[in-house]
Amino acid sequence: MLNPVQNGGVTSPSGFKAAGAACGLRRPGDTRPDLALIFSETPAVAAAMFTTNRVQAAPVIVSKENLANQRAQAVVANAGVANACTGQQGIDAAKGMAELTAGLLGLSPSDVVVASTGVIGQQLPMEKIESGIMAAATALSREGGASAALAITTTDTCPKEVAMQISAGGHVVTIGGMAKGSGMIRPQMATMLCFLTTDAAIEGDALEEALRHAVEQSFNMITVDNDTSTNDCVVVLANGAACNPVIKKGTGEFQLFLKAMVEVCSSLAQSIARDGEGATKLLEIAVQGAPTVEEARRAALTVAGSNLVKAAVFGADANWGRIMAALGYSGANFDPGSVDISLGPLKLVSKGQGAGFDEGLARTLLEADTVKIDINLNSGWHRAVAWGCDLSYDYVRINGSYRS
Amino acid sequence: MLNPVQNGGVTSPSGFKAAGAACGLRRPGDTRPDLALIFSETPAVAAAMFTTNRVQAAPVIVSKENLANQRAQAVVANAGVANACTGQQGIDAAKGMAELTAGLLGLSPSDVVVASTGVIGQQLPMEKIESGIMAAATALSREGGASAALAITTTDTCPKEVAMQISAGGHVVTIGGMAKGSGMIRPQMATMLCFLTTDAAIEGDALEEALRHAVEQSFNMITVDNDTSTNDCVVVLANGAACNPVIKKGTGEFQLFLKAMVEVCSSLAQSIARDGEGATKLLEIAVQGAPTVEEARRAALTVAGSNLVKAAVFGADANWGRIMAALGYSGANFDPGSVDISLGPLKLVSKGQGAGFDEGLARTLLEADTVKIDINLNSGWHRAVAWGCDLSYDYVRINGSYRS
Repeated sequence: MLNPVQNGGVTSPSGFKAAGAACGLRRPGDTRPDLALIFSETPAVAAAMFTTNRVQAAPVIVSKENLANQRAQAVVANAGVANACTGQQGIDAAKGMAELTAGLLGLSPSDVVVASTGVIGQQLPMEKIESGIMAAATALSREGGASAALAITTTDTCPKEVAMQISAGGHVVTIGGMAKGSGMIRPQMATMLCFLTTDAAIEGDALEEALRHAVEQSFNMITVDNDTSTNDCVVVLANGAACNPVIKKGTGEFQLFLKAMVEVCSSLAQSIARDGEGATKLLEIAVQGAPTVEEARRAALTVAGSNLVKAAVFGADANWGRIMAALGYSGANFDPGSVDISLGPLKLVSKGQGAGFDEGLARTLLEADTVKIDINLNSGWHRAVAWGCDLSYDYVRINGSYRS
Repeated sequence: MLNPVQNGGVTSPSGFKAAGAACGLRRPGDTRPDLALIFSETPAVAAAMFTTNRVQAAPVIVSKENLANQRAQAVVANAGVANACTGQQGIDAAKGMAELTAGLLGLSPSDVVVASTGVIGQQLPMEKIESGIMAAATALSREGGASAALAITTTDTCPKEVAMQISAGGHVVTIGGMAKGSGMIRPQMATMLCFLTTDAAIEGDALEEALRHAVEQSFNMITVDNDTSTNDCVVVLANGAACNPVIKKGTGEFQLFLKAMVEVCSSLAQSIARDGEGATKLLEIAVQGAPTVEEARRAALTVAGSNLVKAAVFGADANWGRIMAALGYSGANFDPGSVDISLGPLKLVSKGQGAGFDEGLARTLLEADTVKIDINLNSGWHRAVAWGCDLSYDYVRINGSYRS
């Protein structure tokens, strides 16, 4: 049984505190906090996935090193400056963030995960960062999840939080998470930033497998603009405070834990897609009947990432030819004459040709908050779901002037 | 020696006639001709390249068949309806276009190349097509190139024509061409529609090799929106009217002919990129220092195709971090700490970090008609150039309501 936690987030699991602080990293007038801290009262088992971009931000490099021992107790993250393409000075700054945090919380620097998001190519203003870390460390609380979630947002229009509960060995286990988008989103491993916490007692390898599995079905299946960032990371900390029997791979508890992880990650991933830069709606592309899972995933992501499909959805134009064209260049193998496409309950394409649908109804369905497109390639037994958003004037406005 | 022909096009080479006719395939109020005919007075050696999209339009299927013998004498093309995803009825319609054209010009239907561009999923209105073919056949003339070029445009804001002359064996040989864009442009083999004519006497295999080589460096190096169309084709007809000694592979004349083909195709490809849907400027991305040609091509195309880079260019924002990020996910191998990036004469990035440039000058350079970005990966000896355009509000406007 999966139970959602009302207004849940990273401090929903036992033994976790968090805080957000404003230390002046944002543009003048933007009063959101910009430095987030998450703290586990006891050392936690940790797993993480990072961007596959060849250009990796300094905090990615440092956090990979710190997480090599599958152990962490705190996460420190800032918005405003990505600390990417910043050379040795950037590496020193990321290490400095870990050291400052560790010093204030009485930890070893290697037990701190560091993350940054914002403009690429600028150095972190370390005085501001230091004051932010001090303020956040002082403010850490069991109610601080929401403030931390807000502190990592950039062009996001809202913070993204979720928590779920399962029962494991008679103990209630909670998984909480927060994430941010909302441009440069086409994760190949993990998305911009996502931090998960759980009070589960779980083995490191089991946690890692659950994370990889969940990320593959969630963050790796969203796209806002096909641009994979230099700073992507998903981190999970499991502190065992739920006192459940330790979860091991291959058990019923693991399956349940894994299911909850998928649910938490999918929820956050969909929030990111729905809040994609300039987005006015969430686009859900479900592909079935593919020869392999990989082809189902490619087909779904290619349709979700097509600028032409996205612009047509923005304009509520049921231009299914663009979906066919995107499927055709996705690299998936299928017979074009076998494809069926539906928009929610409305059949648009039957056996590769227009199904003669009601254009008015199609427009109404395309004007909804969530647009669901079901595609059956009728060429196999595999399926995948991808999420994206529409392409609007605001995407261009936001990205024509983000940095300056 | 390559000499451009003033106002040249497909009727610049000897022995070619063309015409455009308006037969009501466009929206009401759009008075551009919508049916194009190109005719060689004598049978011509022909070569072609077609889209690699798995979903292929009916005219692509029919033209491939007709060109199997490397011979053609006429090209008939319409705008407004793409005749893609139209099943057997679409195939019959494409064959019908070839038969009607062949009948009026006294040819075999297999000597006619058929092409269509426009909305996917609609059937061709054959009565209108028939009247268009009759009108165009009557109007065929040595001055008809411009009208034919206009007849294949869709969201293009201008027709695209070019012609070049070389001297081969003491004879002046002319190559002419016309093309159209301007959305669903990320050719993997050929672009939307491009028709080339030449009066060269040349062997079929030599013509094919020259075309493949030219397309790889031109149409396959442009992207407007990363969407590969279902109708892409590039066709060349060589009728030998220049009476030059037949050009064979491996000769000096072949090298010169090939160079002219590259020049003609590059000129048309750049015209397509510059006239990309909603584009306000041409983006030229030159990559050098790549370990292989394939990686140079990937890197250049990935940067040219990045929505974030395109939007920053639209906003004249020198956000070089997005170029670094795009290079990083392009699949090319390089050391991020070695990358140099220049915007025209202005160095933006040195050894992977910001070069501390003059932002005002950068803005001025980004506000020009053509934005040139030079990237040196400093990781090898290979190079490639790709062309694209910026991403503007108008791209979204055009594609939010193209069909309806």
